[in-house]
Amino acid sequence: MNPRRTVFYLSDRTGITAEVLGKTLLTQFPTVEFRKRVIPFIDTPDKANATLEEINGTARQESQRPIVISTLINDEVRWIIEKSDALCLDLFEGFIGKLEGELGLQSSHALGLTHGIGNATAYERRMGAVNYALGHDDGISASHYTEADVILIGVSRSGKTPTCLYLAMQYGILAANCPLTADDFDRMALPKGLVPHRARLYGLTISAERLTKIRNERRPNSQYAAIETCRSEIRAAEDLFQRLNIPYIDTSTMSIEEIAVTVLHKTGMASKL
Amino acid sequence: MNPRRTVFYLSDRTGITAEVLGKTLLTQFPTVEFRKRVIPFIDTPDKANATLEEINGTARQESQRPIVISTLINDEVRWIIEKSDALCLDLFEGFIGKLEGELGLQSSHALGLTHGIGNATAYERRMGAVNYALGHDDGISASHYTEADVILIGVSRSGKTPTCLYLAMQYGILAANCPLTADDFDRMALPKGLVPHRARLYGLTISAERLTKIRNERRPNSQYAAIETCRSEIRAAEDLFQRLNIPYIDTSTMSIEEIAVTVLHKTGMASKL
Repeated sequence: MNPRRTVFYLSDRTGITAEVLGKTLLTQFPTVEFRKRVIPFIDTPDKANATLEEINGTARQESQRPIVISTLINDEVRWIIEKSDALCLDLFEGFIGKLEGELGLQSSHALGLTHGIGNATAYERRMGAVNYALGHDDGISASHYTEADVILIGVSRSGKTPTCLYLAMQYGILAANCPLTADDFDRMALPKGLVPHRARLYGLTISAERLTKIRNERRPNSQYAAIETCRSEIRAAEDLFQRLNIPYIDTSTMSIEEIAVTVLHKTGMASKL
Repeated sequence: MNPRRTVFYLSDRTGITAEVLGKTLLTQFPTVEFRKRVIPFIDTPDKANATLEEINGTARQESQRPIVISTLINDEVRWIIEKSDALCLDLFEGFIGKLEGELGLQSSHALGLTHGIGNATAYERRMGAVNYALGHDDGISASHYTEADVILIGVSRSGKTPTCLYLAMQYGILAANCPLTADDFDRMALPKGLVPHRARLYGLTISAERLTKIRNERRPNSQYAAIETCRSEIRAAEDLFQRLNIPYIDTSTMSIEEIAVTVLHKTGMASKL
C-alpha cells in the first residue's frame, strides 16, 4: 500500500502560488498518495485559529502530521499556523529574509499582489488579450492581424486555440490563430490573409497518432479523424513550414504551458515581457 | 532614484513555477525596479555553464550580484548555477530536503511534471474543459448545461468569460456562462434555458463605475456603456440574484484568478478537485 499524507495549501489570498509551489514539490514523491486541502483567504487571526484546529484534528485522526505549504504574508497569521502539528513550509519564511538581507530593505508585507488585479495596466492588457484571442480564434477574423504579437498556424486540433488563450491570459500576448486546411495544401500556399504577416507566423505540428486520437474524441470514426487524413495533412503542413521557412514545433508530447513558453522564447517575445 | 536589480528565473523545464514564486516574493519590494530574465529548459551542464557565464557577466556589468530564483531538479545543473556570483534561491534546495526527511523517502528528481502533460487524464480533462468553455460562452448553446459544473451569470462584461476560461484551463472545471439582458430584467426571471439548472448558477456583479469603464473601452459613448444603463442593469441583476437566492460576488476589485478561486470555494467545487 502506498503511503498517504494530507497536504494543506494555505494562503492569505488565492493560494494559487502555494498550490503551484506545492505541486512542483510533491510530484517529486510519486509513490505517496497526497490528499489535498486548499484554504485560501486566511486573512484574520480567527480564520488562522480555525485552520490550526483543522490541521491538528487531521494530525490526530491520521496519527501522522500533515504537510502545510503556505504563502502567508501576514506575520500574525503565519505565527498561529506555525504552532500546528505539521511540517510547515512557508514560501515567505524561507525566502523573504534572504531577499531583505540582499536588498537591504524591509519587505512591504502587502497582501494579494501576485494574483490580484495588482498592476491595473498589466491586468487590463491580459484581459484585452483574452478578448483578442477569442476574437481571432480559428481564422475568424483577419482584420486585426497587424496587432498580433504572434499568429499560430497548423492543422485542426494541433493545440492552437488553448495555447493562444494561455499566452493571452498569463502573459498578455496578442495571439491569433488560423487553421491550415485542404485548400491551402492543394495550393501549397498560406491562406491569403496571412501572407502580409509571415514574419509573425509560428507553426504547430503534431504526430499523426496523437492527432487521430484527439480528432476521434471530437468526431469518432470520421474521415476527418482517420489516421491517413491526419498523416497527409501533417506532412503537407510541415512541407509548407519548411518551404516558407516558418519556424515550428512538434506539440505531440507538450502541454499548452510548454508550447506557450517555447513559443515565447523561440520568437524572442519573452525578452519583451 | 529607485534601486535596480536583475533577476534570473531559471528552470530545467518551463520556468513557470520559478516565475510565479519569484513574482510573489518580489512584489514585496515595490521600491526596487527588477529587470527580469527568464531562461527555461536548462537541462544540460553545457546550458548551465552558458547561463552561469551570463549571470556572472551581468554581475560584473552592474557591479552588484543578480538574484537567481530557480526550480532546478537536476543536481548537476543546480550545482553549476550555485557557483555563480548571485543570490541563489532554489525551490528544491530549500524545501525538498525537508520533505524527504518528513516522508522518509528520496525525491524522484524527475523533470517537468508540473507544467508538462504529466497526468494525461487530468491534462485531457483540462483541454476538454477549455473546449467546453468556448462552446458554452455567452449563452451560445444551452444544450449541454447538464454537464456544467457551474454556470456563471451576470450582466455583459462582468467577468464571466475569462473566469470560465481560467476555471477550465487551470482546474478542468466545466464552466458555462450566460448573460443577463434587458429581456430577463423586464420579466425579472432567468433566461428559460437556465431554469432547470438553478442549483449550479453563480452570479457575478460589479460596480457601475467599473462596468462603464470596461464597456466604454469596447463601445465608446454608447448607450450600452452609459453609467445609467450600467446602474440599472446591475440593480436588476442583483435583485434577481437575491429574489431567486442565487449566490453572487462583486468582482469590481477582483482579478479573474481571485474570482475563480472564490467561486471554487464558495460552491464547494474546490473540495472535489
